[in-house]
Amino acid sequence: MSEPTLRAQKLDAADELAGLRAKFVLDEAVYLDGNSLGVLPAAVPARMEDVVRRQWGSLRIRSWDESGWWTAPERIGDRIAPLVGAAPEQIVVGDSTSVNVFKALVAAVRLAAGGGEGRDEIVVDATTFPTDGYIAESAARMTGCTLRPVAPAEVPEVLSGRTAAVLLNHVDYRTGRLHGLPGLTAAVHEAGAVAVWDLCHSAGALPVGLDEHDVDLAVGCTYKYLNGGPGSPAFLYVRRDLQDRFDSPLPGWNSHAEPFGMRPVYEPAAGAVRGRVGTPDILSMLALEAALEVWDGVSIDAVRAKSLALTDFFLECVAAYVPEGAVESLTPVAHAERGSQVALRCPGAGDVMKRLIESGVVGDFRPPDVLRFGFTPLYVGFADVERAARILARTLS
Amino acid sequence: MSEPTLRAQKLDAADELAGLRAKFVLDEAVYLDGNSLGVLPAAVPARMEDVVRRQWGSLRIRSWDESGWWTAPERIGDRIAPLVGAAPEQIVVGDSTSVNVFKALVAAVRLAAGGGEGRDEIVVDATTFPTDGYIAESAARMTGCTLRPVAPAEVPEVLSGRTAAVLLNHVDYRTGRLHGLPGLTAAVHEAGAVAVWDLCHSAGALPVGLDEHDVDLAVGCTYKYLNGGPGSPAFLYVRRDLQDRFDSPLPGWNSHAEPFGMRPVYEPAAGAVRGRVGTPDILSMLALEAALEVWDGVSIDAVRAKSLALTDFFLECVAAYVPEGAVESLTPVAHAERGSQVALRCPGAGDVMKRLIESGVVGDFRPPDVLRFGFTPLYVGFADVERAARILARTLS
Repeated sequence: MSEPTLRAQKLDAADELAGLRAKFVLDEAVYLDGNSLGVLPAAVPARMEDVVRRQWGSLRIRSWDESGWWTAPERIGDRIAPLVGAAPEQIVVGDSTSVNVFKALVAAVRLAAGGGEGRDEIVVDATTFPTDGYIAESAARMTGCTLRPVAPAEVPEVLSGRTAAVLLNHVDYRTGRLHGLPGLTAAVHEAGAVAVWDLCHSAGALPVGLDEHDVDLAVGCTYKYLNGGPGSPAFLYVRRDLQDRFDSPLPGWNSHAEPFGMRPVYEPAAGAVRGRVGTPDILSMLALEAALEVWDGVSIDAVRAKSLALTDFFLECVAAYVPEGAVESLTPVAHAERGSQVALRCPGAGDVMKRLIESGVVGDFRPPDVLRFGFTPLYVGFADVERAARILARTLS
Repeated sequence: MSEPTLRAQKLDAADELAGLRAKFVLDEAVYLDGNSLGVLPAAVPARMEDVVRRQWGSLRIRSWDESGWWTAPERIGDRIAPLVGAAPEQIVVGDSTSVNVFKALVAAVRLAAGGGEGRDEIVVDATTFPTDGYIAESAARMTGCTLRPVAPAEVPEVLSGRTAAVLLNHVDYRTGRLHGLPGLTAAVHEAGAVAVWDLCHSAGALPVGLDEHDVDLAVGCTYKYLNGGPGSPAFLYVRRDLQDRFDSPLPGWNSHAEPFGMRPVYEPAAGAVRGRVGTPDILSMLALEAALEVWDGVSIDAVRAKSLALTDFFLECVAAYVPEGAVESLTPVAHAERGSQVALRCPGAGDVMKRLIESGVVGDFRPPDVLRFGFTPLYVGFADVERAARILARTLS
């Protein structure tokens, strides 16, 4: 047995999260695409059958009360809260990430404007997942702001008395680089601006510490490391002391203080509920709720420790198996700068990924030349990692 | 046997849509709340099981291509199109109605501004479902417009060279009044403004004729008469010749000309796809797709004819059974002004509805004093109607 194989055995034997694999529907493939679409949690199919047949089919309209449909956005938000370091009643679930970026960014500009004159610039991560940039451009246009795209490392230099809001990604979707949320948030606050974080690639993968680091607003996705299912609704965090001043650009009836009063005049609800918009998509939302049960009793610190061990081990196996120079890692070596994925640059990455998938190693391709591998500590083991690196080496040779 | 009971038997025997009841999961209750949440179509549970277990659980990320997830918004839009009188490639499904009202209204103001200077007023139905009014207020605020709420009948009088956009409900959610879409749309056009229609209470209940009447933009809900399930995604119609100028306030990556190019610069897709925003909620969306199969071969004109027969017959039975003066119908007698519901005003309506529901007649209550009964021709029969009126009379006595 090769040295990496033996190491994998030992690491798997010592893995305190190994038992969680049984809570997912896995097959023989090595699935390293959980940063795109998480694996199906085993509890979801039966729950969905109940939601469809009993809650919708039999209770019908009564389920808005009796099955807790109406309060699902805030109830599920509270389930996500501990995973991102938030006390209860600060997160609501609903709408897509893009829609939530719009809500958060417009609200951030309005919060900043409330603090004084002349704040008319939105700073955005220039290397962001594109939708954040597109939506930021629309938010800027609609609030009379200028958009200033900069690399995250350069954010502190460009902050000024003109800065209204800063939108940053916690983890770069392409390279897997983890940005320094505590320091950047503090810098944004020092400049008197509002910090909005996109947690799509960190929620469920590593500790975020929203409350601890005094983040103002945050959004995140639930179908990656939270395994909520394809297109499951995103979440929005509004820090408790900002909720009274959170002024949504999408004040739908679900955010009204008295939604069933059907009042002609809008009066926002108290609390994070004010981030809701229209009728929540119950099927997707309750699949997510069932999916989140796998987190019961799981420590996000333990998840982070395993995540780093997995990515370390993957880089080690790649170094051992893949001829030098065949791939180049874009993912930082330093743990403090690494998310839960490894991005390898290589020529013909699109074709390479196709062949990898055919060989049972599922990652994804991001143009122009990146192989992306996500490591979900809840269901990926060290033997998977060794096998993926071995098959990658064979595919490249 | 009473006269209405005999009439019901005859009407049911002659009902060409009666066979469709078998395509729904019904029980002994008379369900007259399909204008709030449609009944579960029998095909949905098995489809959802396939979507969850095979498409998500087994194919996982491959389903974006192989199970047609990526193209679901426009594919399902094309399924809805014939029901609202639209040729293909003008409708996309996704997001809530509220979010779509925002997209449509902001885009409408931008379309109007492209036609000349000084159009800075949004006219909105003052009796609208509240979310439309709240969202219209936000759209006005964010586009520098003034909001002008007026009763639909007064719309023609207030139109002027200042009018940018007009947002109207096809059917009033409370009274069931059907507004004159052809005439009002023509009046809006005559004033040089853009007409946005909310079809929540007409899509699937009666012919809309979007193309025929030259409607500019429309939004609608899919969980009422289209039976898509709780919170199923809404739809957005953008008339073909306006698509190139449709300028969305929510330009998420799904609306990009090359979404997987991950380009930093936004370039909108051609066609109705430009109305998409973020990743679609696949579970809710594919439940809707399965639900729409009940419409195969069903004529919306036949649905309308039965709908009018059902509401006529209900009013007739109420007149026969309920003591004069106990209830007052808010729903117009004239067919041309009636949607697919009957709203009865009565003292203590909230309590009356509670007791009705306990007796197996499910409608809903709208404050302050309205009993609302929706008639879905696909699964409501004339015997149901007679029974509902009979039990209403008993409850009121």
